[in-house]
Amino acid sequence: MFWVYTAIVVSIAAFGIAAYLYRWVKNQPKGSETAEEIAMLIRRGANTFLSREYRILAVFASIIAVIIFIFLPELVWKSSNVLLNLRMAFAFLFGAFLSALAGKIGIDIATIANVKSAVAAKKSIVPSFAIAFKGGAVMGMAVVGASLFGAGILYITTRDPNTVLSFSFGASTLALFAKAGGGIYTKTADISADLVGKVELGIPEDDPRNPAVIADNVGDNVGDVAGMGADLFDSNIASIAAAMVIGLVIGEQNLVFSYATLGLLASILGVLFISLGKHKNPGKALNTGTYITTGIFAVLTAVASIIFNYSFRIWGATMVGLVVGVIIGITSDYFTADNKKPVAEVARASHTGPAFTIISGLCYGLLSCFPALLGIGVSALTAYKLCEPLGDGYAMFGISMAAIGMLSVVGMIISNDAFGPIVDNARGLVEMAGMGDDALTVTDELDAAGNTAKAITKGFAIGAAGLTVIALLGAYQEIVREATDMVIGFDIMNPLVFFGIMVGLAVPAVFAAMLMMGVDRNAQRMVEEIHRQFESIPGLKEGRPGARPEYEKCIDIATVGALKELIPAGLMAILVTLAVGFIGGIHAVGGFLAGNIMSGLFLALFMANAGGLWDNSKKYIESGAYGGKGSDAHKAAVIGDTVGDPCKDTAGPSLNTQITVVSLICSLAAVLFINYSLF
Amino acid sequence: MFWVYTAIVVSIAAFGIAAYLYRWVKNQPKGSETAEEIAMLIRRGANTFLSREYRILAVFASIIAVIIFIFLPELVWKSSNVLLNLRMAFAFLFGAFLSALAGKIGIDIATIANVKSAVAAKKSIVPSFAIAFKGGAVMGMAVVGASLFGAGILYITTRDPNTVLSFSFGASTLALFAKAGGGIYTKTADISADLVGKVELGIPEDDPRNPAVIADNVGDNVGDVAGMGADLFDSNIASIAAAMVIGLVIGEQNLVFSYATLGLLASILGVLFISLGKHKNPGKALNTGTYITTGIFAVLTAVASIIFNYSFRIWGATMVGLVVGVIIGITSDYFTADNKKPVAEVARASHTGPAFTIISGLCYGLLSCFPALLGIGVSALTAYKLCEPLGDGYAMFGISMAAIGMLSVVGMIISNDAFGPIVDNARGLVEMAGMGDDALTVTDELDAAGNTAKAITKGFAIGAAGLTVIALLGAYQEIVREATDMVIGFDIMNPLVFFGIMVGLAVPAVFAAMLMMGVDRNAQRMVEEIHRQFESIPGLKEGRPGARPEYEKCIDIATVGALKELIPAGLMAILVTLAVGFIGGIHAVGGFLAGNIMSGLFLALFMANAGGLWDNSKKYIESGAYGGKGSDAHKAAVIGDTVGDPCKDTAGPSLNTQITVVSLICSLAAVLFINYSLF
Repeated sequence: MFWVYTAIVVSIAAFGIAAYLYRWVKNQPKGSETAEEIAMLIRRGANTFLSREYRILAVFASIIAVIIFIFLPELVWKSSNVLLNLRMAFAFLFGAFLSALAGKIGIDIATIANVKSAVAAKKSIVPSFAIAFKGGAVMGMAVVGASLFGAGILYITTRDPNTVLSFSFGASTLALFAKAGGGIYTKTADISADLVGKVELGIPEDDPRNPAVIADNVGDNVGDVAGMGADLFDSNIASIAAAMVIGLVIGEQNLVFSYATLGLLASILGVLFISLGKHKNPGKALNTGTYITTGIFAVLTAVASIIFNYSFRIWGATMVGLVVGVIIGITSDYFTADNKKPVAEVARASHTGPAFTIISGLCYGLLSCFPALLGIGVSALTAYKLCEPLGDGYAMFGISMAAIGMLSVVGMIISNDAFGPIVDNARGLVEMAGMGDDALTVTDELDAAGNTAKAITKGFAIGAAGLTVIALLGAYQEIVREATDMVIGFDIMNPLVFFGIMVGLAVPAVFAAMLMMGVDRNAQRMVEEIHRQFESIPGLKEGRPGARPEYEKCIDIATVGALKELIPAGLMAILVTLAVGFIGGIHAVGGFLAGNIMSGLFLALFMANAGGLWDNSKKYIESGAYGGKGSDAHKAAVIGDTVGDPCKDTAGPSLNTQITVVSLICSLAAVLFINYSLF
Repeated sequence: MFWVYTAIVVSIAAFGIAAYLYRWVKNQPKGSETAEEIAMLIRRGANTFLSREYRILAVFASIIAVIIFIFLPELVWKSSNVLLNLRMAFAFLFGAFLSALAGKIGIDIATIANVKSAVAAKKSIVPSFAIAFKGGAVMGMAVVGASLFGAGILYITTRDPNTVLSFSFGASTLALFAKAGGGIYTKTADISADLVGKVELGIPEDDPRNPAVIADNVGDNVGDVAGMGADLFDSNIASIAAAMVIGLVIGEQNLVFSYATLGLLASILGVLFISLGKHKNPGKALNTGTYITTGIFAVLTAVASIIFNYSFRIWGATMVGLVVGVIIGITSDYFTADNKKPVAEVARASHTGPAFTIISGLCYGLLSCFPALLGIGVSALTAYKLCEPLGDGYAMFGISMAAIGMLSVVGMIISNDAFGPIVDNARGLVEMAGMGDDALTVTDELDAAGNTAKAITKGFAIGAAGLTVIALLGAYQEIVREATDMVIGFDIMNPLVFFGIMVGLAVPAVFAAMLMMGVDRNAQRMVEEIHRQFESIPGLKEGRPGARPEYEKCIDIATVGALKELIPAGLMAILVTLAVGFIGGIHAVGGFLAGNIMSGLFLALFMANAGGLWDNSKKYIESGAYGGKGSDAHKAAVIGDTVGDPCKDTAGPSLNTQITVVSLICSLAAVLFINYSLF
C-alpha cells in the first residue's frame, strides 16, 4: 500500500501548494474602485450561476445516488450486504462533491486573479503573467489533488475498484452538467453580447454599456474554468479507475497509484518552476512548462521502475500515451494557430464571402481529425503490443497505462487552461475600467497565448478521453468476465454489436445538436433582453454617465436558460444507454460504447478545431489582413466565429464528458444488463 | 441456372423498354430555334465533359486492370492458370465499361428530354411530366438492365463470384470518379454562376448573359444523371456480388438472381404504370410509383418463394431491407421538405443572420443521422435474427438479402432521380429561351418535385450503400475463411482492429474535405473567368443583343478542374486502404472497413440532409417568408445554400461510392493481405 499512502500525501501537498498560491495571488495589489466593482460583479455572477447549478445538480445527484443504492452492485433487496450498496451510493456522491468543490475553488481564484492580473498589467507583462498563471495553477493543483486524494481514500477504505468506478461516475455526472451547462451559458452570453454590441451597434467588445458584457465575462469562468476543470478531473479519475479494474486482476494496482502520484509530483514541480523568462513570450513559457513537466514525469517513472522493479514495457506504454498527448496538442495548435496555413487560408476564403469562410473551415476541421485519430490508434496498438509479452491481461493494462501517461501532466494542463479565462477577463477589466492602452497591449498578448493554450488543452482533453474510454471498454469487459466467467468480444459482425454501434454513432451527434440548439434558443431570449434595455434605459446607448445597464438580468437569463437546456441532452445520453443495455444486452452495449467513442471523438475533434480555426481567422483579419476590422472579409470571419463558438465551447468539449459518462454507466450497470436484458 | 437465364432475359427486356422510351421521347415536338440551340450547347457541354472524363478514366482503368492481372487472384508468376488473372482483369474492365455506357445513355436522353419537356410545358404539366419521367426511366432501365446483365453473363461464363467482385470493383471505380468528378463539376459551375450572377450582379438564375449558365445546366446532368446513376449501378452490383459470395457457400446463389430479377421486373412494371393522374401532383406521382413498385416486388417474391419453395425467413429479411430503405427516404424527406419543421426553423433562424442559418442547419443535419443509422442497425439485426435459424451462414446471408431488398426498387429510384435534373434543365431552358410565364410555372412545380425526389434518392442511396458494405464485410470474412480456413472476427478490443477503425474513421472525412476544397479552388478559377468575360465582352452586362458570352470557356474550366481535383482524393482513399492492409493485415482491414463505413455513413447522411435543408430553406424564403427574395433573411439563406451545395452534391454523395470502392478492394486483395502484411 506504499504508493496509495504516498498518493494521499502528495495530493495533500498539492492542496498545500494551492493554498499557498491562493494566498499569494490574493495579496497582490488592489485595483481602482471601478475595476474592483466590475470584478465584484463578475465574481457575484459566477457564484450565482454556480450556486444555482449546484443546487439543481444536488437534487439530480441525490436521485442518482438513490438509484445506485437500489440497484448497484446488486438489487438491494437481494443483496447479502446492504453496506455495499450504501458504499456505492456514497462514492458517487463523494465524486460529485469533490468535482464541485474543485470547480468552486477554481472559480473563486479565477475571479480574484483576473483583476489582480489586470492591475499588474499596468506595470509590465511579467507580474501580470505570474498572477494569471499562479491563479490557474491553484485550479490545476486542486483538481488533480482532489482526484488522487479521493481515489486513494476510497481504495484504502474499501479495496474495491467498483467503488472507485462509482466515485468516477459521480465526478463524470457532475462534469457532464458543468461542462454542458457552462458551455451553454458562456456561448449564450458571448453570442448575444457580440450580436447586439459589435454587429448591430458597432461598439467594442467589453464595452461597459452592453448589458451582456458582465455575463460574457462570467461565462468565460463558468465555461472554461469550472467546466474544463470538471472535465479533466473526470478523465483523470476515470483513467485511474479503469487502470485499477484491469490492474487488480494481474496484481498491478500499485503501479497505477505510483504513476499517477508521480504525474502529480511532476506537475507540482513544473508549476513551481514556470516563469516568463528573458524572452517574455507567454505562449512559449506555457509550452515550456508542459515540456518540463513531461520530462520530469518520464525521469521519475523511469527511476521508480528501476527501484521498484517495474517492467520497462509498461513504462514504455505510459510514455507512448504521454507523447501522443503532446502530439495531439501540437496538431490542434497547427490547425488553429494564426501563424500556420489553415488560419491564413480561412482568412483568405473570407475575402470571397462568408460561405467560403464556413466551407473552408469545415474542410480543415475534417482534415484535422486525421492526425489525432491516427495518434490514438497507433498509441493503443503500440501500448498493447509492448505489454502483451508480459502475460495474460497485460496488453489491455498497457492501454490503460497509456491513458494514465497521457493524463499524467494534467495538473500542468489545467493550470495552462485556467490561465486562459483569467487573462481574458483581465483584458475585459482593463477595457471596462479604462486602465489605459499599455495595459491593454499586455493583456492582449496574454489573451492570445491563453487562446492557444485553450486550443491545445481541448485537443489534449479529447485525446485523453479517447484513450480513457478504450481503457474503460477494457474495464467493462473485465467486469463482465468476473460476473459471467466469460470473455466477451465485441465483434463487429455480431449483429447485436453492430446494432449497438449504429445507435452509439448517433448519440453524440444528437447530444451536440441538442446543446447547440439550446444555445441558440437561449441567445434569442438574451438578445431580446438586451434590446429591451437599450430601448428602455435612457442614455444607455449614448453612454451618458450614470446610465447603467441591468447586468444582473442578463446573467439571470443565461443562468436559468443554461440549466433548462442542459437537462434534456444529458438525460437523452443516459437513457439511450440504458435502453440499449436492457434491450440488446452486453454485446449491444459493447458496440454502443464503441460507436459512441468513434463518433464522439470525431465530432469533438472536428468541432474544437474548426471552432478554434474560425476564431483565430477572425483575429488574423482583425490584426490587419484583408482590410482588417470592418472590411467585408472581417464580417465574413465574424460569421465564421459565431458558428464556431457553440461548436468549440459548448458541444465539442461536452462530448468528451458525454463519452466518459456513458462508458462508466455501462461498466457500473454491466451486471444488470447481463441479468435483465431482452436479447 | 433458371434464374440466371431469366435475369439475362429480363435485363434484355429492360434494354428494350429503354430503347422504346428513348424513341418516344425523341419523337416529341421540337422547340424554337433558340431553345434548340441552347439545348445543343448543354448537350455538347455534357458530352465534352463525359468524353474527357472517360478518356482519363480509360487510362486509369487500364492501369488498374494491369495491376489486377498481375496480382489477382494470385501473383501472375505463381499462378497455375494465367487465364484466371486475365479473367479478373477483363471483368474489371467490363464493369467499368458498362457503368460508363449507362452514364452515357443517361446523359444522352437527359439532354434530349430537357428541351422536349420544356416545350411541352407550354401546353400543360401532363405531357411535360410524362416526357421528363420517361427520360429518367431510360436511365433507370439502362442502369439496372446493364448491371444484372453483366453479373448474369459473368456468372454463366465463369461460375466464379470473384469475377463478379472484380466486375463490381470496375463499376465502383468508375462510379467513384464519375461521382466525385461530376460533383466537383456541377458545384463549381453552380457556385460561380450564383456568386457572380445572383449575388454580385443581381441577375436571375439561368440568365443567358451569365457565361457560367450553360456550365451550370451541364453540371446538373453530369452530377445527378451520370453520377447518381453510376453510384446506384455500383451499389446494385456490389449487393449482388456480396450476396453471391455469401450465398454460394450455402448454395443459395439462385435466390440472389431470382430476387434481383424480380426487383428489375417490378421496376419495369412500376415505370410503365406511372402517370400524373387526376390530382396533377408530380411529387405524389413519383412517390406513388415507388410504392407501387415496392408492392409488386413484395408480391412477386412472395409468389416465387411459394413456387420455388424458398424460405419465408429470407423473404422477410429482404422485406426488412425494402421497408427500411423507404423509411430512410421518408426521413430525408422530413428533414428537407419545405412543409416540415426543420426547413421552417432554418428559415426562421436566417432571419437572425447567416451564422444562425448555419448553426441551425448543422444541428438538424446532425439530428437527421439518428433515424437512418437506427434503421440500418435495426434492419441488419432483424435480417440476421430472422435467418439465423436456417443454419450456418444464413444469418449473414440474410443481411446481404436485406441489401438486395433495399436495392430491388433501384430501377424506379433512378428513374425518379434522373427526373430531377431533366426538369431542372427544362426550367432553365424555359427561362433562357423566354418561353413565357405559364411554362415557367409548370417547370417550377416539376423542379420542386424533382428536388424532393433527389433528396429521397440520396437518403436511399446512402442506406443501400450502408447495408451493402455490411454484406461486403461478410463477403470479406468469407473470402478470408476460404483462403485460411479461419473464421476471423473483427473484435473492437483487438488492437489491430481498433487501429484500423481509427484510420478508417478518418478517411471519409479527409476524402470529403479534399473534394470540397477542390470545388472551392475550381470555383475561384471560374469566378475569375466570369469576371473577365463581363469586363472584356462589350455589351454583355447590359444584355445588348448579339453580345454572347463564351460559354465554352466556362465549361472548359469546370471540366479540366474537376478532373484535376478528383484524382488525388480517389487515390488517397485507395492508397490508405492498401497501406492499412499491408501494414496491419486482415484484422486491421476489418476494423478499417468498419470505421470507414461508420464515419462514411454518418458524414454522407449529415451532408446530404443539411445541404438539402439549406437549399429548401432558401426556396422557402424565396416563396415569400421572412421578407422573401432580397431580404436579409434571404441573403442569409443564400449563404447557407452555398455552404450546403458542395456538401450535398459533391462530398456527401461521393462518400457512398468511396465506402463501396474501399470495401471491394479489401475483398479482392484479402489474400494478398494475408500473405504479405507486416503484422
